Amino acid sequence: MKTYLDCIGCFLDQALKSARLVSDDEGMHERVLREILRAAVKMDLTQPPAVMGRFIHQTVRRFSGHEDPYRSIKDHFNRLALGYYPRLKKDIEASGDPLARAVRLAIAGNIIDFAVRSRLDDAKLDQAIEESLRADMSGAVLEDFRGAVRGAERILYLGDNAGEIVFDRLLLEQLPREKVTFVVRGGPVINDATRADAETAGITDLVEVIDNGSDVAGTMLEMCSEEFRCRFEEADLIAAKGQGNYETLNQVNKDIFFLLKVKCPVIARDIGCEVGRLVLQRNNSFPGE
Amino acid sequence: MKTYLDCIGCFLDQALKSARLVSDDEGMHERVLREILRAAVKMDLTQPPAVMGRFIHQTVRRFSGHEDPYRSIKDHFNRLALGYYPRLKKDIEASGDPLARAVRLAIAGNIIDFAVRSRLDDAKLDQAIEESLRADMSGAVLEDFRGAVRGAERILYLGDNAGEIVFDRLLLEQLPREKVTFVVRGGPVINDATRADAETAGITDLVEVIDNGSDVAGTMLEMCSEEFRCRFEEADLIAAKGQGNYETLNQVNKDIFFLLKVKCPVIARDIGCEVGRLVLQRNNSFPGE
Repeated sequence: MKTYLDCIGCFLDQALKSARLVSDDEGMHERVLREILRAAVKMDLTQPPAVMGRFIHQTVRRFSGHEDPYRSIKDHFNRLALGYYPRLKKDIEASGDPLARAVRLAIAGNIIDFAVRSRLDDAKLDQAIEESLRADMSGAVLEDFRGAVRGAERILYLGDNAGEIVFDRLLLEQLPREKVTFVVRGGPVINDATRADAETAGITDLVEVIDNGSDVAGTMLEMCSEEFRCRFEEADLIAAKGQGNYETLNQVNKDIFFLLKVKCPVIARDIGCEVGRLVLQRNNSFPGE
Repeated sequence: MKTYLDCIGCFLDQALKSARLVSDDEGMHERVLREILRAAVKMDLTQPPAVMGRFIHQTVRRFSGHEDPYRSIKDHFNRLALGYYPRLKKDIEASGDPLARAVRLAIAGNIIDFAVRSRLDDAKLDQAIEESLRADMSGAVLEDFRGAVRGAERILYLGDNAGEIVFDRLLLEQLPREKVTFVVRGGPVINDATRADAETAGITDLVEVIDNGSDVAGTMLEMCSEEFRCRFEEADLIAAKGQGNYETLNQVNKDIFFLLKVKCPVIARDIGCEVGRLVLQRNNSFPGE
């Protein structure tokens, strides 16, 4: 997905939010914003927003000296989500269709996202879970997903945010584990999950976990490691969580199921739905479709 | 008031909204945004936000070739407000304290503002009127205003937006007309009122109307005409409507009453109130305070 002009104001808001999170130094905040403005003057709008997002978070890390500004937020949401885990696990096991229920909960977990303008508090997570169990979702796409999982030999599950990945674990538990590899980001960017979060969430004990070698909040293949690109090439099914993976992969010619909660009006317009919608969507670029 | 870092994302949103209003040409929208970004890289944050606002709207006019992009919006809200006028006029005349009621309604009219992120539709105006009649407002400041009006020889009433100025007319009718001069902007900027709007609203038949010689959405004295600055100097009381006049005059050493509805979080923080608040406030910089 290209960068829309609507993203530009949001980039500045994100940069400021992130700079303020890491420091009270208003001079630093201003230097970060002027650096983002300088880059935005000549930015390439044909690239997905995640490319500028990467520059923003690199700039905040560079100007503040903090390697991982969202570490405590990631820890908080991992703990919070682990608190939900036992109840949700039982709920899935008691369900008539555990895979369907786990898909809904995995998407609900995508509310834990600091790359958007809205604010998240603990209460919103409760609400997101309740909504996800009642929300409309295409039964046909779910059956496609079920069939694709059954037919696939090599499944890559691309994670998104810390905290959220505890909800991914619930879905991973419903998939054929020996076929699944879970993918985290190669370096810190916003609250996106890295290997440490996969360990905390118990995913490393469940399936193979690799990282994509990049600090983009998404999957920009040309910025990922050679090793990850091979694994991506070999996989016959991709499950991709969140807006960042959607915007960086929706033009890629591959069998990808996107699981996300739509949190921004630009993504909503691109998908053709409303903000707040739970989305399970098969990649339109896939030639088999 | 200085420009806060929070204003920067909002500048880009405003520029895009305004560019889209005037044209469907996405290439032009992009050129406008890159021009604003270039200017924002080196902008002077000690200036009020209205200074960058002026550059934004000058750029939209320059790149689009439209002299007055908000003309039809201004006409719409003038007509809409004139539709309310007879009922509100009666309501004021039937009130036990016509001045107090007219002050509230004048502030309610300040909801008609296109310089903010939120959207305005006709229904919101109804709601704003209802709320303004119930809202908290400092009785002490109102009495100060009543006393200041009584004591003043030369009152300048600085208008803000088209449509809104019909509500200003209701308040002007409660003031000693021979002492009052109503001020409009010297050139088009967003939906701010110019002389044409004062004529449509019937204000030119009521009191003297002058313009300030500038196309800032506020009152930047150093950008106003020499003639206006003299009138400002000579006045012993200023009534200033809206956020733009607040942010450009709140540091000026003069007896000013600000009448506004707070529509943005930055202004709210500066004043020390919540967004949505109706404000009648005497300038803290006035030495007599």
